[in-house]
Amino acid sequence: MDPLLRNLINVHSPSGEELSMKQFILEYASGHAKSWNQQPEIIKGPDFQDCVMLAFGKPRTAVFAHMDTTGFTVRYQDQLVPIGSPDVKGGETLVGRDALGPIKCQLRLTEDHEIFYDFGRAIQSGTSLTYQPDITYGQPLIHSPYLDNRVGVFVALKLAETLQNGVLVFSAWEEHGGGSVPYLIKYLYENFQIKQALISDVTLATDGVKPGEGVVISLRDHNIPRKSFIDRICVLAKNSGIPYQIEVEGSGSSDGREIQKSPFPVDWCFIGPSQHRPHSASETVHEEDVKHAVEMYQYLLQML
Amino acid sequence: MDPLLRNLINVHSPSGEELSMKQFILEYASGHAKSWNQQPEIIKGPDFQDCVMLAFGKPRTAVFAHMDTTGFTVRYQDQLVPIGSPDVKGGETLVGRDALGPIKCQLRLTEDHEIFYDFGRAIQSGTSLTYQPDITYGQPLIHSPYLDNRVGVFVALKLAETLQNGVLVFSAWEEHGGGSVPYLIKYLYENFQIKQALISDVTLATDGVKPGEGVVISLRDHNIPRKSFIDRICVLAKNSGIPYQIEVEGSGSSDGREIQKSPFPVDWCFIGPSQHRPHSASETVHEEDVKHAVEMYQYLLQML
Amino acid sequence: MDPLLRNLINVHSPSGEELSMKQFILEYASGHAKSWNQQPEIIKGPDFQDCVMLAFGKPRTAVFAHMDTTGFTVRYQDQLVPIGSPDVKGGETLVGRDALGPIKCQLRLTEDHEIFYDFGRAIQSGTSLTYQPDITYGQPLIHSPYLDNRVGVFVALKLAETLQNGVLVFSAWEEHGGGSVPYLIKYLYENFQIKQALISDVTLATDGVKPGEGVVISLRDHNIPRKSFIDRICVLAKNSGIPYQIEVEGSGSSDGREIQKSPFPVDWCFIGPSQHRPHSASETVHEEDVKHAVEMYQYLLQML
Repeated sequence: MDPLLRNLINVHSPSGEELSMKQFILEYASGHAKSWNQQPEIIKGPDFQDCVMLAFGKPRTAVFAHMDTTGFTVRYQDQLVPIGSPDVKGGETLVGRDALGPIKCQLRLTEDHEIFYDFGRAIQSGTSLTYQPDITYGQPLIHSPYLDNRVGVFVALKLAETLQNGVLVFSAWEEHGGGSVPYLIKYLYENFQIKQALISDVTLATDGVKPGEGVVISLRDHNIPRKSFIDRICVLAKNSGIPYQIEVEGSGSSDGREIQKSPFPVDWCFIGPSQHRPHSASETVHEEDVKHAVEMYQYLLQML
Repeated sequence: MDPLLRNLINVHSPSGEELSMKQFILEYASGHAKSWNQQPEIIKGPDFQDCVMLAFGKPRTAVFAHMDTTGFTVRYQDQLVPIGSPDVKGGETLVGRDALGPIKCQLRLTEDHEIFYDFGRAIQSGTSLTYQPDITYGQPLIHSPYLDNRVGVFVALKLAETLQNGVLVFSAWEEHGGGSVPYLIKYLYENFQIKQALISDVTLATDGVKPGEGVVISLRDHNIPRKSFIDRICVLAKNSGIPYQIEVEGSGSSDGREIQKSPFPVDWCFIGPSQHRPHSASETVHEEDVKHAVEMYQYLLQML
Repeated sequence: MDPLLRNLINVHSPSGEELSMKQFILEYASGHAKSWNQQPEIIKGPDFQDCVMLAFGKPRTAVFAHMDTTGFTVRYQDQLVPIGSPDVKGGETLVGRDALGPIKCQLRLTEDHEIFYDFGRAIQSGTSLTYQPDITYGQPLIHSPYLDNRVGVFVALKLAETLQNGVLVFSAWEEHGGGSVPYLIKYLYENFQIKQALISDVTLATDGVKPGEGVVISLRDHNIPRKSFIDRICVLAKNSGIPYQIEVEGSGSSDGREIQKSPFPVDWCFIGPSQHRPHSASETVHEEDVKHAVEMYQYLLQML
């Protein structure tokens, strides 16, 4: 298992608190860019909040990978409020930090589906907690919290190694209603005339898409991308020779939703591995699917 | 019954797949514009995806008519996923096309409200299906699928014949969460300083509005337009002498929703015929209401 | 009790009909600005619909106070449709005006939670009704309808007296899905490079925040603002010496929602008094909390 993925999983960055992941990506880029085929322009600063973009060459296509994860906010007393939609069964180990120091506590789930923490002291209201990183690599399966979307970020950073033309976009708040894609896509459209976006994320394994059977190309989820763009991608995917699966769903969402609803005419398509137990403390992906995702992005960024 | 409406109904264009309707409108305009009072500027291209606008004179008001319809996407095996909110009872004939050729199948509805197709062969995942066009004209009532929004497009194209100043906007994805109105209204505001929009669509017949009793002017649905704009329209409508009805609802929506929520200060109002059985395979409108809709738009585009 | 708050409560301005409140604010500003430390630029006109902004000095921070209230629209016969989410128990006195003159009627609530009016004559469809102003000042508690958000507007207008640098933004439609914040924030970002917004509104009293225990600073509600901005505010609030309480919720919303989802990178934080019985005909706030809200805004607008 690639140490980069391990390192990504160890970063604490629930929605609204993506700063640490931004810093990780900036440090990774500054440490590795010299070995990349092309040196990217790094787009960051107060006009991009905690987001960051790496622009290579003359970009025609943007790849979005969200940096945030689900998590929990400490309310009052021992109550927790979800960030995004974590899927808990009770007993999960949560970690975080408040003014009094580091926190490692247990999640308690009541019969009324209310969530609490058990810890030796009170945790400051507003503190965010996330699942403790706990990675099991039983080749070829990777079990870990937050593969959604450490895998999507991983795919984007692998793509950076060989990318000629394209922008890698690291977005925020995807798990909790969004809020960064609107200004990111505005910048991309106004500065690079970007009209094509691919969403590097993970999707739910179903009766139609299964881990180990190829990277998933989603024709629709709750949102419906423009058919002519999807059709182009399917033709290219077929020609690529890379294993892939087609997804058709009526629910589920991604950064594609905010691109769709933005005041910019940008086509989008979700492409990424499928996984079991999304948003749980032990998501599962198949490492071959991750490899094929990287290959598919490499191919599509050239051809689109 | 006007053959233009028949021809519009025969076009396959569920949300996300409006290309055929765009082409129909472009061909219609190129074939008929010579007989129109004024030659429009045709606004289209990659910055407008599958949407198209016809701008006449010095526009002060935009008329939005959505080109898409509800429909169904083939999931895996014989499963269907709705596009928008089709209202089915089972047994409807659906049509479409995949790589293997044209499709004409039956919709099957289970007791659990799940939907499937019955067809002699498997249909390719991601294929879109729509109700088979089946028009019954029992003067004065028109029964057909997709009067929502072929009627709204029809009204806009009739308006084109005499329009002096105004933009006809043919939008996409209205039935399924939107996604084109934001960039269309951006263009209209930035290029024509448009601050007034009318929504040419059809609305549900209720205890308050009834087919045959005039075109409906909606004071509100789920969304609340600015009162001062609505009041101006009501005064004009009264002065027009054209039969109309007032609608006040707490639910329902239209392209007005996305105009309302856009970052542009554009007033909007829904104006169109009422209908029975919306989103079913047999919607019903009264042809006099359609005639009065055209007249009301002609009047308002002059006066606003 | 300050007569300004009384006067604000007497204005009829349900969502979509904020014109009277805009006029009130403009008249108030024109009558009082001479006694303010600084003369504001008044930003208004057709590009801002019924909204208005007062810009002081070189603004770094915007304060949003929504001008609209919940209310009711007359449907057909004696039926009412809610504007926003009024919380009624039946028997409330509602007021409004239609073409036939002023209206003062009673709200009737059925067992099916449907709402009607009882009045001696039919009220014109589309007429808006609001709770009759009925203020009880039992020092230190203020009981009245529409403290949400007359209190928030009051705080902003008090802030105007001493404000050096900042913009006071009076927004519309907050109670009913929004629609003005997107173009207001666009203007603020493009013209003043505003990247910081505070939301002057009232919030629900809970087990965590209680009237009389200080102005509430919300770390999150249904929406999650950026943690680094919230953290800065909490440090400043602590240093201010002004009584305040921390809120952490999983539900509830404000103008912050639309700032979050806008295509502009603007941080936001809710700051305002807590109240009992939100959206009822008798909301309750503690006047000390209002005083501390004004003080907190004065402090933060200097320090941020």
